[in-house]
Amino acid sequence: MTKAILDSNNSVQKVAIIGASGYAGAELVGLLYKHSQAHICHLVVSENSSSEGKLFSELHGRFQGICDLPLEAFSAAWFDEYAAKLDVVFFATPHEFSADWAQAFVEAGVKVFDLSGGFRLKDAADYPKYYGFEHANIDALSSAKYGLAEWQHDEIANTNLVAVPGCYPTASLLCLKPLTSNNLVVENSLVVVNGISGVSGAGRNASLATNFNEVSLKAYNVLQHRHQPEISQEAAIDVIFSPHLAPYKRGLLATVTLQLKAGVTTAQVQQAFQQAYSDKPLVRLVASWPEIGNVAHTPFADVHWQFDEDKQVVVASCAIDNLLKGAASQAVQCFNISLGLASEYSLISTC
Amino acid sequence: MTKAILDSNNSVQKVAIIGASGYAGAELVGLLYKHSQAHICHLVVSENSSSEGKLFSELHGRFQGICDLPLEAFSAAWFDEYAAKLDVVFFATPHEFSADWAQAFVEAGVKVFDLSGGFRLKDAADYPKYYGFEHANIDALSSAKYGLAEWQHDEIANTNLVAVPGCYPTASLLCLKPLTSNNLVVENSLVVVNGISGVSGAGRNASLATNFNEVSLKAYNVLQHRHQPEISQEAAIDVIFSPHLAPYKRGLLATVTLQLKAGVTTAQVQQAFQQAYSDKPLVRLVASWPEIGNVAHTPFADVHWQFDEDKQVVVASCAIDNLLKGAASQAVQCFNISLGLASEYSLISTC
Amino acid sequence: MTKAILDSNNSVQKVAIIGASGYAGAELVGLLYKHSQAHICHLVVSENSSSEGKLFSELHGRFQGICDLPLEAFSAAWFDEYAAKLDVVFFATPHEFSADWAQAFVEAGVKVFDLSGGFRLKDAADYPKYYGFEHANIDALSSAKYGLAEWQHDEIANTNLVAVPGCYPTASLLCLKPLTSNNLVVENSLVVVNGISGVSGAGRNASLATNFNEVSLKAYNVLQHRHQPEISQEAAIDVIFSPHLAPYKRGLLATVTLQLKAGVTTAQVQQAFQQAYSDKPLVRLVASWPEIGNVAHTPFADVHWQFDEDKQVVVASCAIDNLLKGAASQAVQCFNISLGLASEYSLISTC
Amino acid sequence: MTKAILDSNNSVQKVAIIGASGYAGAELVGLLYKHSQAHICHLVVSENSSSEGKLFSELHGRFQGICDLPLEAFSAAWFDEYAAKLDVVFFATPHEFSADWAQAFVEAGVKVFDLSGGFRLKDAADYPKYYGFEHANIDALSSAKYGLAEWQHDEIANTNLVAVPGCYPTASLLCLKPLTSNNLVVENSLVVVNGISGVSGAGRNASLATNFNEVSLKAYNVLQHRHQPEISQEAAIDVIFSPHLAPYKRGLLATVTLQLKAGVTTAQVQQAFQQAYSDKPLVRLVASWPEIGNVAHTPFADVHWQFDEDKQVVVASCAIDNLLKGAASQAVQCFNISLGLASEYSLISTC
Repeated sequence: MTKAILDSNNSVQKVAIIGASGYAGAELVGLLYKHSQAHICHLVVSENSSSEGKLFSELHGRFQGICDLPLEAFSAAWFDEYAAKLDVVFFATPHEFSADWAQAFVEAGVKVFDLSGGFRLKDAADYPKYYGFEHANIDALSSAKYGLAEWQHDEIANTNLVAVPGCYPTASLLCLKPLTSNNLVVENSLVVVNGISGVSGAGRNASLATNFNEVSLKAYNVLQHRHQPEISQEAAIDVIFSPHLAPYKRGLLATVTLQLKAGVTTAQVQQAFQQAYSDKPLVRLVASWPEIGNVAHTPFADVHWQFDEDKQVVVASCAIDNLLKGAASQAVQCFNISLGLASEYSLISTC
Repeated sequence: MTKAILDSNNSVQKVAIIGASGYAGAELVGLLYKHSQAHICHLVVSENSSSEGKLFSELHGRFQGICDLPLEAFSAAWFDEYAAKLDVVFFATPHEFSADWAQAFVEAGVKVFDLSGGFRLKDAADYPKYYGFEHANIDALSSAKYGLAEWQHDEIANTNLVAVPGCYPTASLLCLKPLTSNNLVVENSLVVVNGISGVSGAGRNASLATNFNEVSLKAYNVLQHRHQPEISQEAAIDVIFSPHLAPYKRGLLATVTLQLKAGVTTAQVQQAFQQAYSDKPLVRLVASWPEIGNVAHTPFADVHWQFDEDKQVVVASCAIDNLLKGAASQAVQCFNISLGLASEYSLISTC
Repeated sequence: MTKAILDSNNSVQKVAIIGASGYAGAELVGLLYKHSQAHICHLVVSENSSSEGKLFSELHGRFQGICDLPLEAFSAAWFDEYAAKLDVVFFATPHEFSADWAQAFVEAGVKVFDLSGGFRLKDAADYPKYYGFEHANIDALSSAKYGLAEWQHDEIANTNLVAVPGCYPTASLLCLKPLTSNNLVVENSLVVVNGISGVSGAGRNASLATNFNEVSLKAYNVLQHRHQPEISQEAAIDVIFSPHLAPYKRGLLATVTLQLKAGVTTAQVQQAFQQAYSDKPLVRLVASWPEIGNVAHTPFADVHWQFDEDKQVVVASCAIDNLLKGAASQAVQCFNISLGLASEYSLISTC
Repeated sequence: MTKAILDSNNSVQKVAIIGASGYAGAELVGLLYKHSQAHICHLVVSENSSSEGKLFSELHGRFQGICDLPLEAFSAAWFDEYAAKLDVVFFATPHEFSADWAQAFVEAGVKVFDLSGGFRLKDAADYPKYYGFEHANIDALSSAKYGLAEWQHDEIANTNLVAVPGCYPTASLLCLKPLTSNNLVVENSLVVVNGISGVSGAGRNASLATNFNEVSLKAYNVLQHRHQPEISQEAAIDVIFSPHLAPYKRGLLATVTLQLKAGVTTAQVQQAFQQAYSDKPLVRLVASWPEIGNVAHTPFADVHWQFDEDKQVVVASCAIDNLLKGAASQAVQCFNISLGLASEYSLISTC
């Protein structure tokens, strides 16, 4: 299906990206720019941003000559003028911003794909605890759908507000859900998720913590990271999540360790993973432990697992690009699903 | 122009890539895989290669599920069986291999785009000196055309054997040729080219020199690198070329320093660069010193210069991806030109 | 205590380092070179090594002008000529080499500090399983002492054959032993050790796997790594160990997750760690999650932990330099202990 | 000469380091901490610094347990209370700060080693042009001595105010001065200096430019960098200096290209370098092109050159650690010289 043909459908969606100054926002621009069913109408940054009025390509120099749209500042006036003319908006914004504004877009008839954490947790009480603010739109929170593309196809297809999963949860859940959904895990046992992310996960900003000289491998936010309740919620199992920062730019790895029930066999584990992903082209069950180098700058999630039958312990590992499958390309998968397209439409390239 | 439409022309070229196990070869696979006018028929490695019989995607894991073609071993028998059925062959091989075989393909009616150095130097005597072997096809050497896409369009369009430029020469010549072709440079003055390349330029191989722990910034092959005569030949000016290896993967920077003739003005320099590149979409005259980060994984060359009118000295710098504009994407530019397409056809993506 | 004074004791030890071509061996040279009680008499490499006859500083260029000793080739003849004249030998060799030769040195009256895995596992049956060879010196294996410096001081002081711990076990055990030795861990629960190492852990060699371009973050040898039985043996608790390789040179992080017994309090955990390390200057109980950047090129181990009282789960993390505390400096700690010196003698520098 | 013996001389210098929060300041702490003739009395930061009151080791975590001194805030009151009690002060401060305060310390009888650029340029008019401020102490400027340790021994020995050279000038001048001081260079020819520095050269700060994700190889400040007049002044020859930033932490490389006079021979070049450095233990004339990996974390400068007799062109390259030979260890060399010690005293370690 080519751009030319689709264009003639007049089905091309008018899109705005709010939060285009950050890394995930920039990836969204790149993916939607080449998407036959999307027309980028507005690139928006937060009010009072120092980026306002600059060209997108001034911030993200690799886009010079490709996308030189100006960055507009969001405001209530902006919303009043433009929101109703849009079909779709992507939020790559601070969590509280999308919590405050997503519902308004939905009410204006705009589909929302929210890459922030504003609608990921079902329990509103978790917002003050893990995100530091009271959620102002409890109704929207309860109607929003979590958008792990390979697992929530129908929910995504039938909602106007998709909470695109976090980067660590995406990689973790792709390991966990084949096991938990098949009821293979020992109840009340320790489930350990170790995550390792490159520095782009910390965002585009001026801080000593992300200064090139200061970055080195370390754990952070252990037992307290907001992705711990997100993983536990979506896997329906309590996990211990230890995130780590490592000195490279792109890519994220989650390694999970679980105790399986007595009697579970390697064949059952294999079947669980095969069944989950054999018809999902963006999740590759690879023959050896997945490497960041094979998924960076791609929309793929590579998964591998090993089962110790003596100990009934399985270790599974998933590698993704934190800005793509962990953010922008998964948002586009959700967008594709909402349009009735294949989830991977326009995403697989060889670059 | 979309793939669907072009396909109906029946003009799709049957292509083989010889040397698909290396990094430039893999980039070629990626670029040609998505090229509407190319159909990859064979991926070939050298005879007795340990890669023979493996899948391409076993060597280059990011291609799993995208391109899983087998790697065939080159031999005289292979040539006899397949060469005449091809339209185009890309050589990403050792220099001597293409020097030995390119002419045979041309005689079989196949267009050759040679990414090796086998046909870059016009003076056959330079081959023993800089490449360590006697060139076996002097006639082909003299008829081959150098393929710096922005400067040799017509030569590329009218030959069957294109010597795709080296990585350092590409970046260096894009700085030098606007100045030398406008006759702005003082004769017999020192022309200094400093090049810095990431480690992918050293190839995909097992060596202590490219061991992760051993790589650090250093100069190498100063005054003796085979790209020095190539730059001098194509700029028609004698240069001193000092290449450096730096600890990152992708990208190359050339910084050139020249003495311009008395009376040359900033405006003349500006005009020279503008004239050269204003209509060349893959060379961007950027507003500040070019960065590897903006060109890595892209087909662009970013160029910036500054002129000291007191000293009549110009410094210009060009950043490219050594495997793309310095190898594979420039080869595809040449392929495009030979097909009568725009040089940048199918190359600009936002990934 | 200064070098001048100690020298006059005539107690300076005559030392050989076998395996000086590798990274751990080179660190040993650096540490012993400045150690007042050591005189390096021989730097030795394996027979038929390509390094034989070269200067140590030709392989390790940073030592030019500091240590330009020649590399001698080991052989039975070398042993016969030199062994008996030595006081101490350090093995930074392949595992099987030390398994074969360490006992002979001990019998010649030489103290052996073995940085290989040749004497770390007590169960001889583990050698074919995890190391791929039958151990030829079962008696020596049973008499050798494991040398985790902060935990086995007396054993180290009273043996002639010290099995210096592996890099991952060092970091893991420094987290685990305060908890296991105080009997705080739930029996038969999952104990998860995730390790992440820089590429120097893979050694100084020519391989595609350690080529600069090929290295990216990944798990490897999960459930099968030879450090899993070593950690389990020394912690006296069964662990699941998942090692990861990450794209940086120096440093190693272990993050362990354990279920503590009902009723165990934060105060008890704190006391366990304080008691273990408050008088151990090379283990620092740091106030936040330890970073590789603070321990690389140092002999320190930085440890931090956090306890979730709701879940009775503790996560602890330890950062070390894999070549120093994970190999060479811990070997020197053992050497110091065997001489009756403080374990940290001569090791703390500010470089 | 050991610490114990020297201490009994009562010659130990009472030292303050102003600017101990930055990277060069931290290296100074490390070097002086182990220096038998220095006692660090005060670590000082600028007034109103966010670091004031913190421990030095809170900012530089690798010093935990080694140097936990508090950071004091500089002020006129601080000066009045402490300056006269000191023997030596090191400035690792902003340029204007040392320009303002160094003279006051000298007048209080304190020797000053200034690592900033406050006293490097002889022509006061260069300060507004290259440093952006009017120099307030022209007299001090003219009496200060430039402190390239291998070339200005006597001047350093006989002054109370040493302008410790910049990082790029140190590496550049070590290449240039053997040639210029022997009058081998063609007059009025182009002299090209290309410099490449790791990111630590950009300092310890929160900025988007040094964010881990943003850093990539590029030229910067070409033709305008303040080290260009410094190199020209000290080499007594006009140079074109093009600095580059590269994505690694520690180390700096300068590669210089010059036209030598007709008739100059390789032997003369060799003699020039030998004569300059054969008795200078911290400058190593190495056998191949110098690598950052061999000098990072060391006080050495590695130099190599090659001469093309056909073209009468010499290329020379020097690698240093930008924070050590390019700042802190060279400052300690100057301190040593001022005490009558060997320049390299206490600096050569094997760590």
